[in-house]
Amino acid sequence: MKDKKDHRIEIIAVGSELLTPFFQDTNSLYLTQRLNDLAMDVSYKTIVGDDWTDLTQSIQEALSHAHLIIAMGGLGPTKDDRTREAFATVLERKLIFKEEILKKIEARFKRRGMFMPQVNKKQAYIIKGALILDNKNGTAPGQWLDTKEHIIVLLPGPPHELKPMFEASVWPRLQKLRTDYVARRVLKTAGLTESKIESLIFDAYPKASHLNLTTLAYPGQIEIHMTAHSKESKAQAERRVKKLEKAILARLNDSVFSASGAELEEVIGNLLCLNKKNLAVAESCTGGFLGHRITNVPGSSEYFIQGIVAYSNEAKTNQLGISPDLIEKQGAVSPQVAQAMATGIKEKANSSYGLAVTGIAGPTGGTPEKPVGLVYIALAWDKGTEVSKNLFLGNREAIKFQSSQKALDMLRRHLLKS
Amino acid sequence: MKDKKDHRIEIIAVGSELLTPFFQDTNSLYLTQRLNDLAMDVSYKTIVGDDWTDLTQSIQEALSHAHLIIAMGGLGPTKDDRTREAFATVLERKLIFKEEILKKIEARFKRRGMFMPQVNKKQAYIIKGALILDNKNGTAPGQWLDTKEHIIVLLPGPPHELKPMFEASVWPRLQKLRTDYVARRVLKTAGLTESKIESLIFDAYPKASHLNLTTLAYPGQIEIHMTAHSKESKAQAERRVKKLEKAILARLNDSVFSASGAELEEVIGNLLCLNKKNLAVAESCTGGFLGHRITNVPGSSEYFIQGIVAYSNEAKTNQLGISPDLIEKQGAVSPQVAQAMATGIKEKANSSYGLAVTGIAGPTGGTPEKPVGLVYIALAWDKGTEVSKNLFLGNREAIKFQSSQKALDMLRRHLLKS
Repeated sequence: MKDKKDHRIEIIAVGSELLTPFFQDTNSLYLTQRLNDLAMDVSYKTIVGDDWTDLTQSIQEALSHAHLIIAMGGLGPTKDDRTREAFATVLERKLIFKEEILKKIEARFKRRGMFMPQVNKKQAYIIKGALILDNKNGTAPGQWLDTKEHIIVLLPGPPHELKPMFEASVWPRLQKLRTDYVARRVLKTAGLTESKIESLIFDAYPKASHLNLTTLAYPGQIEIHMTAHSKESKAQAERRVKKLEKAILARLNDSVFSASGAELEEVIGNLLCLNKKNLAVAESCTGGFLGHRITNVPGSSEYFIQGIVAYSNEAKTNQLGISPDLIEKQGAVSPQVAQAMATGIKEKANSSYGLAVTGIAGPTGGTPEKPVGLVYIALAWDKGTEVSKNLFLGNREAIKFQSSQKALDMLRRHLLKS
Repeated sequence: MKDKKDHRIEIIAVGSELLTPFFQDTNSLYLTQRLNDLAMDVSYKTIVGDDWTDLTQSIQEALSHAHLIIAMGGLGPTKDDRTREAFATVLERKLIFKEEILKKIEARFKRRGMFMPQVNKKQAYIIKGALILDNKNGTAPGQWLDTKEHIIVLLPGPPHELKPMFEASVWPRLQKLRTDYVARRVLKTAGLTESKIESLIFDAYPKASHLNLTTLAYPGQIEIHMTAHSKESKAQAERRVKKLEKAILARLNDSVFSASGAELEEVIGNLLCLNKKNLAVAESCTGGFLGHRITNVPGSSEYFIQGIVAYSNEAKTNQLGISPDLIEKQGAVSPQVAQAMATGIKEKANSSYGLAVTGIAGPTGGTPEKPVGLVYIALAWDKGTEVSKNLFLGNREAIKFQSSQKALDMLRRHLLKS
């Protein structure tokens, strides 16, 4: 590239399926993250089908906007796969046959006891001047071409081919082009609203142009994303982001459940293991989702004993020993029933903790006194119980998620104290 | 538009957040679906930030590729929202202040007991010649501009504003431009592999150019998407797709669980209601995910009694009455234990059906004899039981999904027979 400081970047995703309602380009999110890690920002993303005119026009335009162009998809063996031909045409460069690539593709087929179909031969051609990027997980090699004006990277579309190739062959080359170092941190929080968080960290918002702080709000989870840049070194960027992180942590304390990227279910898994405790859950409106999240963590059988989805009132009585009178008097969605569910499952499973959820996930079933989104969550342990009343917004799915989030966070906060 | 037959379409998503790793443009999937319903295909999708040069350049390029341009985002009140200014500049048309828009925006603020901030005034400007598209869910109106060369549609970015506006104001206008009618059907199947389906429907693949058939494969669910076109009428397109659908249905029979878009959990919900039956589940490796899917259906409390997540062997014994000897002898992941879990939960819940899953979701816990992905699924009813042995591929999440899918499908097939 002429001017290494001016890394304008365009990502082109090639594939007619990406122009249907059924497929989304997700590779570009991964690529953007990795480019951002090198302090490089993406300026354009283009999605184009396999039509020759559209494809060559997109490439022509990309050359006029950007210095670094990463194109993915269209490197397969079929007639519709024409990304390499389109780049060669627009760049007015020949495609060169490489015996070494053909041998690798043939060997790949041979290992599976197959002969290489003739159509795959076209994958052995590269744009004149390009470097071959080895593909450990497929037949299509990638390409890296430095034309002095542009750097052009061609990658295969399937994520399990693209990602390893990017890490092994593209990342090390991009690193040499970096002019700026970046360090980032993500703090994940539960239990506070976005506006509460804003009010708590207001005075710690960075003023320096080399620091950036953004909050991303999901239902039940607010994340604080921080980046620090340095022209000098990675170490300086790290020091800068650490200082900012420390200031934010001091203001948010134990509302931060993860500074490492871990999800809440992983965090409580670790805490339970550390404390040699185990857990059982009783769910009503979450219908199994709480157990599902807990068991999404590999190794969760170490601390998760069992769950009961007591959807009907009979199940609450028969499975958790809750008296029909209590349900009659207080209603199935009540602090008393939540508490009885938590104690009931704890006793039944003979576990250190019992965690229970009962609420109205909607869209029907709400009343003026007990509206959709009203959810009681209870935690029982050896020496006591705790209940929380919540009014969650959103659809059925959002209410189920927020309920599970609050339940896990209640357990987390208790484990931190004990 | 000059030539109404030539609907080349480009969608432009404007917003710097769409160039980060955190946000995906999903509006374009919805728009593509609705355009496809009018037999209109999308040729390009572009994602661009709020940089003025990038934005105007994208618009210039879109005018050269496409006849219909739908741009979304960047209609807000802030300085960074410049989509309307950018289109006006590129089209060399003035922005015209509309008192009627301002009044609506002011009234909207007033209804909330607030005064309109001055910055919102810019939302009352439209490109000269454009029609105003009313926004029932936000302050930014959309715009529809027919320049004879192009049709340009500006929509707000938030999906809850964009979708109602599209349906109310854009769809009726696009309908008038249609030159072709389309009808579509989606058949969702479970229980057959993609290659098995291909071999069954091979001879029914449409040859006529007005018919199209595509299979989309997800783990545990293969979908057959069919479209028929007609230059004459919607009715003719419908007749054509119905004939194709009938041919496919005749070949796939009861492997098709839905021709209406319904998910498998909704289908079994309907079948249980129709048959006045109810259900309880016992889960091991799915950890609550089966109950979660069943209870994702509003009104599932009508037929879902309860679930037990018997993750530990103790829970299998204590909760489901499975003898420790059986677990010792056969292993927790065995057809015998699956069967005992299904009978156990059926008896415990006193339900019409008991559905049970036990398996190894990985990534650890596999052995040569019982590898990761080995899952036994059992169904118990009044007069018998049925067990299936499965070897699912993929990660923990994929194995959990396929297990729940197979369990629901086993119940569905049983309900169809009875």
